[in-house]
Amino acid sequence: MILILKNLATDDQIDHVLRRVEEMGLQHHLSRGTHRTIVGIIGDEDQLREEPLRAIPGVAQVVPVLPPYKLASRDAHPESSIVDVSGVKIGGGHLGMIAGPCSVEDPDRMFRIAEKVVASGANLFRGGAYKPRTSPYAFQGMGEDGLKLLREVGNRYNIPVVTEVTDPRLVELVSGYADMLQVGARNMQNFALLTEVGKSKRPVLLKRGMSATITDLLMCAEYILSQGNMNVVLCERGIKSFDPATRNLFDVAAVPLVQQLSHLPIIVDPSHATGRPDLIPACAMAGLAAGADGVHIEVHDCPEVAKSDGPQALLPEQYDQLAGQMKSLAALLGKQFSTLPGSPNPSASDPQSSINSETVV
Amino acid sequence: MILILKNLATDDQIDHVLRRVEEMGLQHHLSRGTHRTIVGIIGDEDQLREEPLRAIPGVAQVVPVLPPYKLASRDAHPESSIVDVSGVKIGGGHLGMIAGPCSVEDPDRMFRIAEKVVASGANLFRGGAYKPRTSPYAFQGMGEDGLKLLREVGNRYNIPVVTEVTDPRLVELVSGYADMLQVGARNMQNFALLTEVGKSKRPVLLKRGMSATITDLLMCAEYILSQGNMNVVLCERGIKSFDPATRNLFDVAAVPLVQQLSHLPIIVDPSHATGRPDLIPACAMAGLAAGADGVHIEVHDCPEVAKSDGPQALLPEQYDQLAGQMKSLAALLGKQFSTLPGSPNPSASDPQSSINSETVV
Amino acid sequence: MILILKNLATDDQIDHVLRRVEEMGLQHHLSRGTHRTIVGIIGDEDQLREEPLRAIPGVAQVVPVLPPYKLASRDAHPESSIVDVSGVKIGGGHLGMIAGPCSVEDPDRMFRIAEKVVASGANLFRGGAYKPRTSPYAFQGMGEDGLKLLREVGNRYNIPVVTEVTDPRLVELVSGYADMLQVGARNMQNFALLTEVGKSKRPVLLKRGMSATITDLLMCAEYILSQGNMNVVLCERGIKSFDPATRNLFDVAAVPLVQQLSHLPIIVDPSHATGRPDLIPACAMAGLAAGADGVHIEVHDCPEVAKSDGPQALLPEQYDQLAGQMKSLAALLGKQFSTLPGSPNPSASDPQSSINSETVV
Amino acid sequence: MILILKNLATDDQIDHVLRRVEEMGLQHHLSRGTHRTIVGIIGDEDQLREEPLRAIPGVAQVVPVLPPYKLASRDAHPESSIVDVSGVKIGGGHLGMIAGPCSVEDPDRMFRIAEKVVASGANLFRGGAYKPRTSPYAFQGMGEDGLKLLREVGNRYNIPVVTEVTDPRLVELVSGYADMLQVGARNMQNFALLTEVGKSKRPVLLKRGMSATITDLLMCAEYILSQGNMNVVLCERGIKSFDPATRNLFDVAAVPLVQQLSHLPIIVDPSHATGRPDLIPACAMAGLAAGADGVHIEVHDCPEVAKSDGPQALLPEQYDQLAGQMKSLAALLGKQFSTLPGSPNPSASDPQSSINSETVV
Repeated sequence: MILILKNLATDDQIDHVLRRVEEMGLQHHLSRGTHRTIVGIIGDEDQLREEPLRAIPGVAQVVPVLPPYKLASRDAHPESSIVDVSGVKIGGGHLGMIAGPCSVEDPDRMFRIAEKVVASGANLFRGGAYKPRTSPYAFQGMGEDGLKLLREVGNRYNIPVVTEVTDPRLVELVSGYADMLQVGARNMQNFALLTEVGKSKRPVLLKRGMSATITDLLMCAEYILSQGNMNVVLCERGIKSFDPATRNLFDVAAVPLVQQLSHLPIIVDPSHATGRPDLIPACAMAGLAAGADGVHIEVHDCPEVAKSDGPQALLPEQYDQLAGQMKSLAALLGKQFSTLPGSPNPSASDPQSSINSETVV
Repeated sequence: MILILKNLATDDQIDHVLRRVEEMGLQHHLSRGTHRTIVGIIGDEDQLREEPLRAIPGVAQVVPVLPPYKLASRDAHPESSIVDVSGVKIGGGHLGMIAGPCSVEDPDRMFRIAEKVVASGANLFRGGAYKPRTSPYAFQGMGEDGLKLLREVGNRYNIPVVTEVTDPRLVELVSGYADMLQVGARNMQNFALLTEVGKSKRPVLLKRGMSATITDLLMCAEYILSQGNMNVVLCERGIKSFDPATRNLFDVAAVPLVQQLSHLPIIVDPSHATGRPDLIPACAMAGLAAGADGVHIEVHDCPEVAKSDGPQALLPEQYDQLAGQMKSLAALLGKQFSTLPGSPNPSASDPQSSINSETVV
Repeated sequence: MILILKNLATDDQIDHVLRRVEEMGLQHHLSRGTHRTIVGIIGDEDQLREEPLRAIPGVAQVVPVLPPYKLASRDAHPESSIVDVSGVKIGGGHLGMIAGPCSVEDPDRMFRIAEKVVASGANLFRGGAYKPRTSPYAFQGMGEDGLKLLREVGNRYNIPVVTEVTDPRLVELVSGYADMLQVGARNMQNFALLTEVGKSKRPVLLKRGMSATITDLLMCAEYILSQGNMNVVLCERGIKSFDPATRNLFDVAAVPLVQQLSHLPIIVDPSHATGRPDLIPACAMAGLAAGADGVHIEVHDCPEVAKSDGPQALLPEQYDQLAGQMKSLAALLGKQFSTLPGSPNPSASDPQSSINSETVV
Repeated sequence: MILILKNLATDDQIDHVLRRVEEMGLQHHLSRGTHRTIVGIIGDEDQLREEPLRAIPGVAQVVPVLPPYKLASRDAHPESSIVDVSGVKIGGGHLGMIAGPCSVEDPDRMFRIAEKVVASGANLFRGGAYKPRTSPYAFQGMGEDGLKLLREVGNRYNIPVVTEVTDPRLVELVSGYADMLQVGARNMQNFALLTEVGKSKRPVLLKRGMSATITDLLMCAEYILSQGNMNVVLCERGIKSFDPATRNLFDVAAVPLVQQLSHLPIIVDPSHATGRPDLIPACAMAGLAAGADGVHIEVHDCPEVAKSDGPQALLPEQYDQLAGQMKSLAALLGKQFSTLPGSPNPSASDPQSSINSETVV
């Protein structure tokens, strides 16, 4: 931690600053420059982070030198983590391909969509049973009936299922049905919820909040990790920006940035990032090319009657075409779609012809 | 609701659109322009809002003509609401002046700060017992002990108290101690929490999320109102922007904008909006001049040892000076600080010398 | 300047860093912490700023300790500057009240509007003769004919005039007619233009760019000052944000922030900041209350036929009402509208009853 | 154009609106809904765009149905344009690979860098002779000497050169040396400059402004096109956002969005978009995968002594590695790096193994 003192900091203020550092049991290192005095503090930065150093009279600026997260940091865990979701791997060259409708809806439709996306190569099926809707008058999801149906889909097609949990009181219930728990963008900083999913044994898909920095996102992962649940997959799903042309702004650079700072896998969600089916394929490809560990896409076979987010869904045939392109790109990058549990493992892509993704990023 | 069709929409697509509108039991109004065909839909827009109209083939754009909130709308309730917090009024010329430390801390300090801010004219005392901290390793608040202490402060100085609730499971507990429940910026779209505070009888202070539009904010108020709790006070506390010079970007125009769209009171929080004590007084004055129904300011008597947010706290003497300036400004605007329950009512400001705040906005 | 080295910086890298600093003729101060090594550099930071220090192998972060502007800095010029525009003062308690239509239009309308805003207390008349329009097909301004007409208005009502210059080739021409040159938001970083107006003798109104930080704004002022023109007035006119409800986001905190960092006057422009007549009065009052040195407002007597920006213009009678409120607020703050050259000076406001604006900010 | 009238619009106001539309020689189409009255206007929207319709009393909202650009629109020109820069094609499957240092510097270094990037496959060499620096005290470029040197590099390696022009007075001079003129992000809305480059015969590289929407960008292209210069290549180079981790926010979705709305080629500039060498390769790959028509990357062989932007430069060997990966990806997408004029044409990539890029987007 470095303290930059104010231009006009008095000797008394400087003494007071040094005394405060000593009281914390830490060492200081004073450096008087031409225009400013600097105090380097040597010792445990985590301890310091909790102190309101900027409120000490005479202090102009506090410059941390370490990231505020530990368990999520690549420093602490240099190897990339691979998260196993009921047999489907995400990370380390294994691509998690999440597909399915926004909401769990009627059973026939669910089975129909699942059958198709599985055939295209999806390895995690999604559907919301509890929907965080911006309007209290909008469809709020089927609740536990939706969870049951989702489980049935998972069982029938032997595909793990992921669904959103929006309330700490529901974590246990949802964990009973789903293979992976999603924490949505609006709840990224719902710390009570993060703590509960951290106590759960289920892997967690943590979506980036609309105005979260990468540090904010990693701190929320840290909440989950610090409760003992190390199976966290991050998801870039678009952030707020000024151009109304797209629903959100797809921050593709978040992928290599997260991979540099953290060992946790990160996937991309071009459906929410753009809100437009016509932009989803290009952004899905961009995400993979940037090194993402998977892609989350909403698929519906009749978007104009979907219970939620119909206008951003791909049709199953559009998803199938895109999946084919993504497979080719994955092979070029030396990666592959993870296989479903029990599936025969496809021969690995030819390492000669592939770009080593580690090198790219 | 207006549908703008695509350039190349076919007659079949247009027929399909019209049929879909009829199936919803609504009337349509077709208008073929030089370059585009437009379909006006006549009937209940709330019903339409739930339909994925943009997903109908041939539809390019959906233009709503009504706001998506109803109970929060000024259309539905032309007169400005006045929210009563255990005898302290907010709205309609009555200014709610919230002051106190970020976190509830040790008793002596709490009483000391409360005594001072009450003397300066504050009429609601604040302090967090459950803190939504970005780090899992940071001080998380005193919990129920903090609530008890806050209640004691309120009783001793006869001042209502407001505190944040972060978890739907805690709403009942917190309601037992606090006069007003705060929903923080990070939880603005925690719909489970909004639903619970909506069922509570306590007035609610709803803070705007860091990337919430005004429509988003009013929709969250609608969640609370739709559960039967009509006592909602909104709070502008700064939004995310690109200049790191301040913690957030204080959106002072939100004040007249909300007052035009909604009957609910809105106050400003320059402490969180700027994160800098040196900018708080100017922004507090700006908020009042823009027509705010109150001001929320964090005050601590030794910021350098505060348990949270010390660097943005005003000292009690700084708050006192600012409160004096705010009183003069309030008088000019024809408003006044609400009085504490049981206090003698100060003589109203002279209407001759005041600017009618309705006219200003 | 402080260099924070990378976690894994080698001794060779550290040696190389120190050698580079020495080659620049500067001193270094090494501090090895528990996790990171820090190099303080002692000497002229301006010289260092030009060096690509972050590109030196092993350097993780470069932390400057001084602002990059010098002439614009309050450090260099502690007293607030007062800019004199042909006899009208802006800064130091003197409020510059700029009013007039967006574009210079037909003479009768110009005289009519000018007469009214002068009667309301405006002390600078504005109107664009060269318009930076987002569409090449839109009205581009009357050109030199507009300048002549603007000059005539200024002469008839004895009020200085301000108009935008958009092209370095036109600075001399425009300077021949106008009392003050405006550099618009879109040209804030048009450095060729800044250099030319810096060589001019006319005072400059420099508007903040839509995505300019305060540092960016002050660096652009520095361009002008560095050419020898010290008469720069800054203008906050709204920045880009994510809520489409207003044209821009009015950053009222920019006022006290600029006043803390710089000696230059800063005014606010609620017309462009909001783009909505219904929000302009509240934001004008907010700007003054925050300590602004003046207010810029577009006024038109028939907005529905205005050549540009009609939808955001106030009517003369709306401006008059607002001007009355602003005068009352100015008196409360111990400030006053500057008087036109040759006008009798109104008695100064009573210092006893006024809030000292220095204290507020 | 659609006018949505205010809730309380009177019959007189409605009549006035209709009369105004008739006065413009256009037809209207009135539709009275349950809550709002709508006026559709039939006729030339370009004419209407210039009218301040929102300023007509009773009008709440104006909804355009057509984009404001014409020559840049894909509606007007359905086939993708291919821009030819002295023999190097950009667009339609031909990738423009721009590489070179930020600033033109000493001759030996220039020749050295050029030789290397040409060997890696770059087909346009860049270097700034006039630098738009945020500080007036920073290196401003070598001026005409830099242009001469750049021309010499181009001649020696038979590679077209692109350089920035920042001042309308310099367009003719720069056109005498460079094969392509760059308009930088800070000058995107410098309309005087756009008009001058529009009169030039040189192809133009137009970079997106930091807070420009896609519509803003296309309107600036329209300025150039409307002067008769149809050879415009757009460039996404990052926009402003709230996370300080990267210099800008790389908006990769701009690529498919622009390609849908316009026929003009669009390339990406990950150097400025991220400002970090460690993120450039991933973002370059992402841009290509999203369908970009080329990639702009800054390369320097000793970043720590670069005259500008050293910290974001790739080393020649890093560029070479990335170029290899980009070539593989291009082949997969059915595209190829354009060849230098006079070069033997490499055999086209195998269409069997390639993804059709039209389908992807």
